[in-house]
Parts: sequence; C-alpha cells; structure tokens
Amino acid sequence: MASSFGKLLRVSVFGQSHGEAIGVLAEGFPAGEEVDLERLQRFMDRRRGGSAPGSTPRREADAPEFISGLCEGKTCGAPLCAVIKNTNTDSSAYKGFDDTPRPGHADYTAAVKYSGFADMRGGGHFSGRLTAPLCAAGGIAGQILERRGIIIGAHLCSIAGINDDRYPLFPTKEELEAPAGKLLPVINDEAGEKMRAAIEAAKADKDSVGGSIECAVVGLPAGVGEPMFETVEGALSYALFGIPAVKGVEFGSGFRAAELRGSKNNDGFFFTGDGKVISQTNNSGGILGGISTGMPLVFRIAVKPTPSIGKEQDTVSLKAGENRKISIAGRHDACIVPRAVPVVEAVAALVILDLMLQGGFFR
Amino acid sequence: MASSFGKLLRVSVFGQSHGEAIGVLAEGFPAGEEVDLERLQRFMDRRRGGSAPGSTPRREADAPEFISGLCEGKTCGAPLCAVIKNTNTDSSAYKGFDDTPRPGHADYTAAVKYSGFADMRGGGHFSGRLTAPLCAAGGIAGQILERRGIIIGAHLCSIAGINDDRYPLFPTKEELEAPAGKLLPVINDEAGEKMRAAIEAAKADKDSVGGSIECAVVGLPAGVGEPMFETVEGALSYALFGIPAVKGVEFGSGFRAAELRGSKNNDGFFFTGDGKVISQTNNSGGILGGISTGMPLVFRIAVKPTPSIGKEQDTVSLKAGENRKISIAGRHDACIVPRAVPVVEAVAALVILDLMLQGGFFR
Amino acid sequence: MASSFGKLLRVSVFGQSHGEAIGVLAEGFPAGEEVDLERLQRFMDRRRGGSAPGSTPRREADAPEFISGLCEGKTCGAPLCAVIKNTNTDSSAYKGFDDTPRPGHADYTAAVKYSGFADMRGGGHFSGRLTAPLCAAGGIAGQILERRGIIIGAHLCSIAGINDDRYPLFPTKEELEAPAGKLLPVINDEAGEKMRAAIEAAKADKDSVGGSIECAVVGLPAGVGEPMFETVEGALSYALFGIPAVKGVEFGSGFRAAELRGSKNNDGFFFTGDGKVISQTNNSGGILGGISTGMPLVFRIAVKPTPSIGKEQDTVSLKAGENRKISIAGRHDACIVPRAVPVVEAVAALVILDLMLQGGFFR
Amino acid sequence: MASSFGKLLRVSVFGQSHGEAIGVLAEGFPAGEEVDLERLQRFMDRRRGGSAPGSTPRREADAPEFISGLCEGKTCGAPLCAVIKNTNTDSSAYKGFDDTPRPGHADYTAAVKYSGFADMRGGGHFSGRLTAPLCAAGGIAGQILERRGIIIGAHLCSIAGINDDRYPLFPTKEELEAPAGKLLPVINDEAGEKMRAAIEAAKADKDSVGGSIECAVVGLPAGVGEPMFETVEGALSYALFGIPAVKGVEFGSGFRAAELRGSKNNDGFFFTGDGKVISQTNNSGGILGGISTGMPLVFRIAVKPTPSIGKEQDTVSLKAGENRKISIAGRHDACIVPRAVPVVEAVAALVILDLMLQGGFFR
Repeated sequence: MASSFGKLLRVSVFGQSHGEAIGVLAEGFPAGEEVDLERLQRFMDRRRGGSAPGSTPRREADAPEFISGLCEGKTCGAPLCAVIKNTNTDSSAYKGFDDTPRPGHADYTAAVKYSGFADMRGGGHFSGRLTAPLCAAGGIAGQILERRGIIIGAHLCSIAGINDDRYPLFPTKEELEAPAGKLLPVINDEAGEKMRAAIEAAKADKDSVGGSIECAVVGLPAGVGEPMFETVEGALSYALFGIPAVKGVEFGSGFRAAELRGSKNNDGFFFTGDGKVISQTNNSGGILGGISTGMPLVFRIAVKPTPSIGKEQDTVSLKAGENRKISIAGRHDACIVPRAVPVVEAVAALVILDLMLQGGFFR
Repeated sequence: MASSFGKLLRVSVFGQSHGEAIGVLAEGFPAGEEVDLERLQRFMDRRRGGSAPGSTPRREADAPEFISGLCEGKTCGAPLCAVIKNTNTDSSAYKGFDDTPRPGHADYTAAVKYSGFADMRGGGHFSGRLTAPLCAAGGIAGQILERRGIIIGAHLCSIAGINDDRYPLFPTKEELEAPAGKLLPVINDEAGEKMRAAIEAAKADKDSVGGSIECAVVGLPAGVGEPMFETVEGALSYALFGIPAVKGVEFGSGFRAAELRGSKNNDGFFFTGDGKVISQTNNSGGILGGISTGMPLVFRIAVKPTPSIGKEQDTVSLKAGENRKISIAGRHDACIVPRAVPVVEAVAALVILDLMLQGGFFR
Repeated sequence: MASSFGKLLRVSVFGQSHGEAIGVLAEGFPAGEEVDLERLQRFMDRRRGGSAPGSTPRREADAPEFISGLCEGKTCGAPLCAVIKNTNTDSSAYKGFDDTPRPGHADYTAAVKYSGFADMRGGGHFSGRLTAPLCAAGGIAGQILERRGIIIGAHLCSIAGINDDRYPLFPTKEELEAPAGKLLPVINDEAGEKMRAAIEAAKADKDSVGGSIECAVVGLPAGVGEPMFETVEGALSYALFGIPAVKGVEFGSGFRAAELRGSKNNDGFFFTGDGKVISQTNNSGGILGGISTGMPLVFRIAVKPTPSIGKEQDTVSLKAGENRKISIAGRHDACIVPRAVPVVEAVAALVILDLMLQGGFFR
Repeated sequence: MASSFGKLLRVSVFGQSHGEAIGVLAEGFPAGEEVDLERLQRFMDRRRGGSAPGSTPRREADAPEFISGLCEGKTCGAPLCAVIKNTNTDSSAYKGFDDTPRPGHADYTAAVKYSGFADMRGGGHFSGRLTAPLCAAGGIAGQILERRGIIIGAHLCSIAGINDDRYPLFPTKEELEAPAGKLLPVINDEAGEKMRAAIEAAKADKDSVGGSIECAVVGLPAGVGEPMFETVEGALSYALFGIPAVKGVEFGSGFRAAELRGSKNNDGFFFTGDGKVISQTNNSGGILGGISTGMPLVFRIAVKPTPSIGKEQDTVSLKAGENRKISIAGRHDACIVPRAVPVVEAVAALVILDLMLQGGFFR
C-alpha cells in the first residue's frame, strides 16, 4: 500500500521510469461521471513541459490509455486504470548509479532498501515521470469537482527566491486558470520573466534551482475533512510528499504563523449579505480543526532544486568502498517546479474528492 | 478511522476535553517490551506544562491508567489502551461558543460538520488536551526505539520570530535530551530568555504567540520508509498535522531548499572510516526518495499562535445570523508551543516505529 | 489493526479477560444519534447468559462505561469508547496453560506468536469475554439501523445436530425479536427443549457441544456492499470469524448450493404490487455480486463446541518437551452458542452500518 | 478500495469482462524474488479450462503482460502490474440484461448501485474472468512461498453432491499437486468420473451444477495470523468471497464442528520425535485463536451453480415494470467449480504471504 493513498477513492501509482509502462489505478470514482478526454490530455500536457524553460528534452506523448473503469465516456463504477507506455527511454545515461549513487536522488536509499534489486534506470519507481499517471487520475477528479462548483488552481509561488504574487482572498475561476496558459505558470508576468532568467542562469552553470508552488481550492463547502488525523492538512500533505522533491507543506499563513500573534493570525468571522459565514483574512488557509471552513483552501509546497546537475559532486562507490566524484550527464530539468504545478492540482483534486466521499457529500 | 494513524502500529486517540476521559488505543506494539512507567510519566509531565511561561493554569495529573496491553510491566501483544480521567473541567467559560464560534478554533467547522451535535466544551475532541494520550503511546514507542539505539529529541526552533540554535549535523544523545530539562526547551538559553519575554509581553497584551519546533531522530537505519506515498515525510506529516495548531511541516532544508541551487542543496556522499555512508550536509533531512538515508532525520513544524485570546475579535452569532464581537476569558496558554515539544517527539516515535514494523525491521 | 474491522465505521476491541478492563473503540458513528442505554444494557444482558443452560457461573455486570463519544445521550462525532471493568476474575484455574496448552484454545498459538509474553489468564485477549464490548458497539449500531427501518435478528439454528426452524422468506420484526426473549433463543420451542437436553447431557459428561446460528437483516435497501472484495459476504465474514469458536460462514443456501442445480438455486425476479423487485426464494441470501438485493440478508455461522472440557485430553509440556494429559477445571460453558447469538447480531449491525456509510447511504 | 485486499501485500483487481483489458496491481511483494513466467502460465492455464467438461468455449490466451514490478525476471520492489487484454469478446449475447437482469447474477444489484452506468457486458467487473489476473498475482505469491517450503494445493471436494476423497492429515507435495494434472482436479478418479457425468447431464438439461473446493496449505509455520479480526480465517474468507459464486467458507471441521462434542472436535497436542508440536486430528484446520498452529491449514468453500442457464427463468423488465421470462443463450460453463480450483490456491497464497509479511516472517 506504499504507492497508494486515499480511503474511499484509493489511488495507486505503478511503473518504473524505463520499464514497460507506468500507470495509475483509481478505485472509488463515483459512477456516471463524464470524462472529457481531450481536456484531460491538455491538463496532462501542462505537466509534460517541453517548451518550458529548463525542462528536459525527453518528450513522450504521455497519452494515457484507459483500460478499465470507463464505459461510453463515463465512469462505470469499476476501478479506473490508465496506462502510459514508456517509449522514449534511453537507459545508457543511468548506468552505474546503483554503484555510485547520485546525491539528492533515491539511488542510495533504494539500493539499501531493496538489497540491489530495485530497477533504478531513469529513477525507476522514484522518477518524477510517475507523476504523469497521477495527473491522469487527478485530472478526472478535477472534472468531477468542477461539475460541483469546486475549482482548483496552482501557480509558481517562487523560483530561486523570486516571488510571484499571491492569490487574492477570493480568487475567481479566471484567476485560478490564467497561469496555466503561460510558459511559466505565474500570476505576475514580470516575476515570471525573472524566474525564467534565473532558470537559464542555473542551466548555464550546469546547475539547477528549486521553488515553491501555491494552490487554491475554491468552492469547497464547509465541513470537509475529518478529525483528528484524517484532516484536510494531514490527508493532503500525505499525498503531496509523494511528489518527488517536495520537502515542505504549509497551509494558510503556514510557517509565517509561527511569527505572528494570535490577534493577527486569527481570522474573524463575518456574515456576507446572503448569509454565508466568511472571514476577511484567510490565515487558516480555509481549515480549522482540520475541517474546511468554506473559505478558499490555500496551501504551498516547497520543491527542492533538481538533484541531477552537471556540476561535479561527491559520491561513493558502494562496491569499491571508496569516495568518488560524479558529474551527471543525460536529460534533466534545470528546474522541475513548473512541471509540478499541475501535479499539485491533481493531488489536491484526488484528496479533496476522497474526503468529500468520506464525509458523505456525494449521493 | 479519522482519529487514527499508522498501519501495523495503529494509534487511535479518543475523548472530549470535558468528557469523562480521554485516551489512546495502540494496536501493534511488539510483545515483550518493558515499559518504564515512571519515565513515561516524566515524559508526559513535560507536556503538562504548568510552570512554563504562558501556559494555562489548568493542571491535571495526566496520569494514564493502562487498562489493556500490559502484563507484568511488559507489552503482551494485546492492544494497549491508556485512559486519562478528566477531573479538572470547568465548562462554564465555554458556554455559547457553539453559537458564537471562536476565531481560529474548530467551533465553527465542528458545528457545521456535526450539525450542532459536537461536544465542544473545552474544545471537545479538537482540544490540545488530546495530545496527552498521544504522549502516553508515543513515550512507550520512544522507549522501544531507544532500546534499539534510536534517540528522538525536539526543541523550540523559534517563538514569535526569535530563533533558537539548530541541532548540529550529528546531535548526541545529550544534546537531544538537554532542552527537555529547561523551563523552555531550547538549545540556546539566551534565545530562551528572549522567547520568555516575548511570551510574557503577549500575555500582558491579552494576546498570544506562535512558534516552530525542530525534531531530530538519530540512530535510524537506512531503508526505513516506503515509496511513493508511505514515505517518512508523508507518514510523519499526516500524523503531525493532527497536533492542533500545526500549519506547516518541512524536512531538512525544507522551504529554504526552494531558494537554493542543486549544487548547494544536494548532500554529497562520503564513507566514514568504519565504512558507513554519510554526508557532510543534511539538507535532505535524512530522507531521499521518501526513505531514510541513515543520517539524522530532521524536520520542523510551524505552530500557529493560540487562537484563544482575551482581545476582542470578530465573530458571528450563527442563530441570530448577525455579526458579533467576542473576548475569550477562561484558562488558556499565551503560547502553546513549548508544551507541543514532547508531543512532536511522541508522534515521531510512533510513526518511525510503524514504518520500521512495515519494513520488517523487527523480529 | 489486528483487533479492528471496518472502514468508515472502524471498530477496535481491546483488553484481556483477566486484565484491568476490556472495551471497544468505535470511530465513525454518525453524529446526533440517540443511544438508549437501558435498551443497550438489555441487549448486552442477552450475551451474559447466566441463567441459560450450560453457561458459565462467572457473571459480571458487563455494564459498559462510555468514556468518549456521547454527549447528552447522543453520539457527538468523537470516537466512541466504552470500557467494561473486569471484576470477577479468578486466574488461579488458568495457571500453567502457557506451559501445557489447552486443546482447542489459543494457548499454544499465542505462546508461539508472542514468545511467551502473552497475557493468557482467562484466555487473555482471545477470550470470548471480548465479545461483550463488541455488543456494546453493535447494540448502538443496531439502534441506528432500526431508526432507518433495518431490523436484525438471530437465533440458534442448531445445537449438537438438533435443528431449529428456519426464518420464513420475509421475517417480521416480531419473528426476528421473539427468540431473544427465551431461555434458549430459538424459533421452535420443541427444538429448544431438545437442545437444552443435549447441553445438559454434555455437561453431565464433562463435555461440551457446538451449534450454528442463523441471522437475518430485514429492511436493507438494494445496493449496499462494494465489489469485488468489500462485499457484504467478505466484510461480514471478516468480522464474524473474530467471534471466538466460529469455524464457518455461509450465505443464503450456502454449502447446500454446492449440491443444487442452477435452475433450483437461482432466485427468479418478480415485481410486487407496489413496484418493488423481489424473489420468491432467497438462495442468494439477499446478495448478488456481493451487493444487497433488497431481499432479507440471511447467513449462518458454525460455532465449534467449547474447547474447555473436564474430560481428560492430550497435551504437551512445552518446557519439559513431553506429552501430558490435561483435565480442565474452572468455570466454563458446556455450550457457548446461545450467548453468541446477540454477538452475531452486533457484528452484523456494525458491518452493515459501515457498508452503508461507504456507499453514501447516510447524509 | 472495494476491489482490493491485503495490508502489506495489497492486491487490486481491475477491468471489465468486455472492456479493453483486465489486470491486477500487487503492492508489497518482497524484492529480489525470481518469477518463473512459464510456470506461472501453466498455473494460469489451469484456470482457463477449455478442455474440462462443462466449461465455456470462450478461450482466450490469458497471457499476462507485466508492465511494472519486474526487472530482469525478478521482483524489484515497485508495485507489480499485470495486464491481460480482452480479445475474444462478443457482447451481442449480453444485450438487454441491464433491463431484464439474469437471476443469480449481479445485473440487478449493479443496475441499482450504479444507477445504470455499470458496464455489465459479459458480467463487467463482476465477471469470473476477473479471476485470471488474481491468478497472475497469486501464482507469483505461490512461487515465493514454495521457495520457503510452503506448498498450497486444492481439489474438487464435491460436485452436485458427489464427494471426492479428503486430503490426508499430512498431505505430501505430490498429493497436493496431483489433482492439477487431471481433467477434473480430484483425488479420487472414480469420483471424478461421476462428477463428469453429472456435469454433462446438467448441460444436456440446459442447466448447471455447483460444488465445493478443499484447499490445504502445508509447511506454514506456527504464529501466522493476528488476533482478533485479522485472523487467518477472517483474512482468507474476506478474499475468498471475492471469487464470484462463493457462498460459504469453513475451516477444519467447519459446519460439521457444530454437531460435535468438544471431546471429539478438540485436537490433542503431541510432540513428534524431532520436537515439533502436532495433533493427530486437525479439526481446527490448523488455526487456533485465528493463528496458525503449524499443522496443515485446511479450508473448504461452497460454489453455487453457474447462474447462466439455458432453462427459462423468471425475471423482470426494469423499464417496463413488468414480469418477464428469460432463457440465457451465449457461452457459459455448466460447472464453473473446476476452473475455480487454481483461483482458490491463488487467493490462499496471496493472503498467507500478506499475513507472513505482517507478522514479520520475512527479512
């Protein structure tokens, strides 16, 4: 159950980067939900990158084949399985990493855990490529949620210390969707331009940069999430840390809350004209006691810089028992963060849908 | 399953703050493990606070009664259940919060979720008091781990923007244990003094302050944790967000990694003299690909300021459908963070033990 | 998670027979459900036996104390925990069974599994006494279901080869409830009288007898249960085998179906006058494809004869490594089956409620 | 999670009978285990039937394609996914069953549960065809267990009331494997011949017959299984009821135990010459307190007669709201039981392997 998450909507990701195929199994989608496959493909294309600055030249079609769970374009109650064939795999560049593990990668820990039997070509089951099937399932979850007025968006919050604007208190559908149409998914194009330059500079130095992503879920009713551990925060973070390179998750004011006083961090309640309870700040990120308040759900994740860099680094030869130097050639992104943006949306959609099913919000 | 976490070691917390009792059920402790009850009580006393600056005057004995799972001082394979009676409960101060929810608390979300049937006296099942039984189970897990050379420590990383020192690269047992003996659990006493002053100042203003906690697990073997979602990060964060007021979790360099280049953030590998693989930085926090590297596991959490403050705040009357003002009297901490320090250790111990059981590290 | 079952309604049983207390933790009961505690006690008293022929003289009050989950007589959304103190425990009769395991009991397997650390006084965590807390939770589930028109009944189907009548095709509430009021819970009093005699005869021979129980759930809507493994049959049998001494479970025509032709075993469909789909036989036991049909759910379990008998039996001394003889003194039932009848109802209620929550039948 | 079972070894089955493909995802196989694919294919061929009396003429290759989890012929720690393409599908014979549900099939319950959106061509996700991928995973589990001296066998215990012999107290590897080589997998060829005749007779009458299967697991160490619900019996029955048409499960003397006295049903303990504890009867089926004793694990399942029969039956038109008659043409087995024999072995292997992983028997 290691590569799975969710309770009533259970999502399992499988495959190795350079194996036959990768894919996803999702059990628990409500039946009778239409799936717009063209729109799903556009969603998945956002993850593929290709033209985005600093992204890897490896560009596979990433076209999921649905071998189970759909009937006449709708979910049919059976588990949904989507498979993506691996076609463009060149393992030659990965030879030897089981012996001389790449710093920042899972080569070393996988070698220890699986006693040398792990298939680590291209990162194996630990590869960022595994987020493609995650997007296939998450894109469907997003369509199901949108049909109920719940809209999810994400954007680059920062790259290499350069900050994008933050979402407004009540982001509109347009504001949530706008970044997706840009080369770098940002709110503020000026910030985007600086980010692009920072990525190019790192690339020129055979180096890489990290960043952060902000995600908002709008239209979520109050009452989603369960105490005490199956909270919106707990369930989301569990799944978000499954995205390779994520090293931090925060909700609302997050780590900034640690510096504030209660009087500044608390969000006072107000009635809107039409009898809805809202607040005029959203430091809680739309969650109190682990349960949604009805305000936008807002969270951010930290993504470390791509560990694969051309610069020389220290490593060891496990067989020889000696220290070594390593310079990583091959195809890799100088900045993986832009491609992770739709993945964050996908994970958010899947977790929210699961929590809503658990809470009896469907049927 | 909402108030539970873990797979082979399953921890469930129950009770309401002003109900009959609170407690914990832990299924899956290995059999035959000695439990030092005196030491456990000392561990739990750290959470109780009482003398710590800014903590609530409510001081119950918090003495867990073990009604299942122990036999002649040892775990016996049966589920372990510990109960803590609620004795010192004064619900009068909590009257009305189901109508006029306190900002920053679960009053509003619980009212919506449970259609008015939640027992929210003293925060009910959402109260920080529920962390006492969590410490009872976690203290036992800690003893089991320590017997195998795994030591866990935590300290106040910051309060109100005042930073403590960070752990060294390889903290010793003494360094991990030292903060627990102090009034405020810090490494640097000067920082502690400033924190104390900040807490007192907030209290004087009928306000509160937040902070952050750093935790380290030393002696953990490489190979603990499962890909892709049942990772050390995912499993830990799921449980950590169950501690009330936690709004962020980060591992290793965490959100700081978002600003770094790969060449700075990657931890190069080296052999020690005795053939162990280590690194000379620990930006990964001891985790690569979700699996422990054998380096110290290091993470931090953000704790928001206590939402209960004496200052006037905005709220609503749900029944009247009108905006209101609220000033919260009653017993509450101006800073909850110091008391959360042992809770973080407890959660870390429980999650690590579960992951080790899953990985077949026992038997 | 070994002593737990259920997904959205998670039931965990804890305690050892001669420990401090036994109890149950149930997470996931809907909030706002009234609990009739007097009626619950009457339900639990049915399990206690005492006056029933062949039952053990150990008679504890079995009064559950609810320490969590209730507020003003209603479920409040927090996990429900009920504790039953062990008062009437005499462990003297159980001395030595860790060395010379009783045939038919868990003494031997527990000794192996827990390396001698299991608390096996009175059967420990394996004792039939653990079914008392199960009844506490199950009785509440039964009340919740009855409020929605779902009625559960069980009766002795056979004792020592003497058969009771079977339920009619559509049992009424009265027919389901009638057996509970009798000394032996049967439909046909003549059969009951013969059973009584068979139990007495076994007792006189220092021996014991087994039997079977039939249970029906009436009023269940069609569509409860999930394919392919979380079926009504699978989920029920998982929990039913947790009742000590259960060795078989069958649904509808069960093992008899193995002897029938399809034309006899299939239940043809018909419309009733008011547009409901029914069948005129119920060989499916109200389940097709693992999902409820709307017909009464009917199943039977086989209960082995109480293993504790006064007659001499073969055993071994584990320490001495030698064969031995054993005659078991102490308090035990010559026939445990009548006391298991309400336990079967309790388990049925809990499993059905969980499946209905999973299927979104609530809210 | 409905179409899944297992905790540390999690098995999920997906696909619809006449969809693109069916398959299985198995998370948690130990890494480094060799998979003999030829032997696996022979195991799967036993399920395919084809030449066996009474089996359907639909004969697909059932060749699983492993798209994840294997590397150089060995398990690699990543989730294992096997896909079987559906090639020989003729849905014409299934038209209309969503309106006039076939008695004994899931047509009606699926129509209710999925509001008409289920893909029920060929039985959809409820088809017996889904047991093919189950065998793919189970065959691998069997190979892993056999490498550790644990052998699993099953045979036709009865067909249409005609009984095969039972396994001896300690079946040898040869005795366990012998039935698999025969046209009908029986111990006693004479009984097999009578069964064959009974199947042919039913077929000639456009009818079908049911039967039962006995399974034994030899070489299992004592101590496998967890109390109180995650027992060998509970875990096995949960998965076994996922095999379509199974209506009963019993362990050891099973329902027969209900008729016995304790002195006859208890298995006395003895030491063998080499210091192993055994019993000279095995009425417990190798399980006490839910935990394996070290004796052979023995259980039986009841399989109802194939519901698809040519004879006229009663059904309804759901749309018209009228009673109807139905005669089922198309390809179907007059007796499905022989083909279920390897499926039972597969499920047994998967459940036992999971329980052993949970108990820390590996590593």
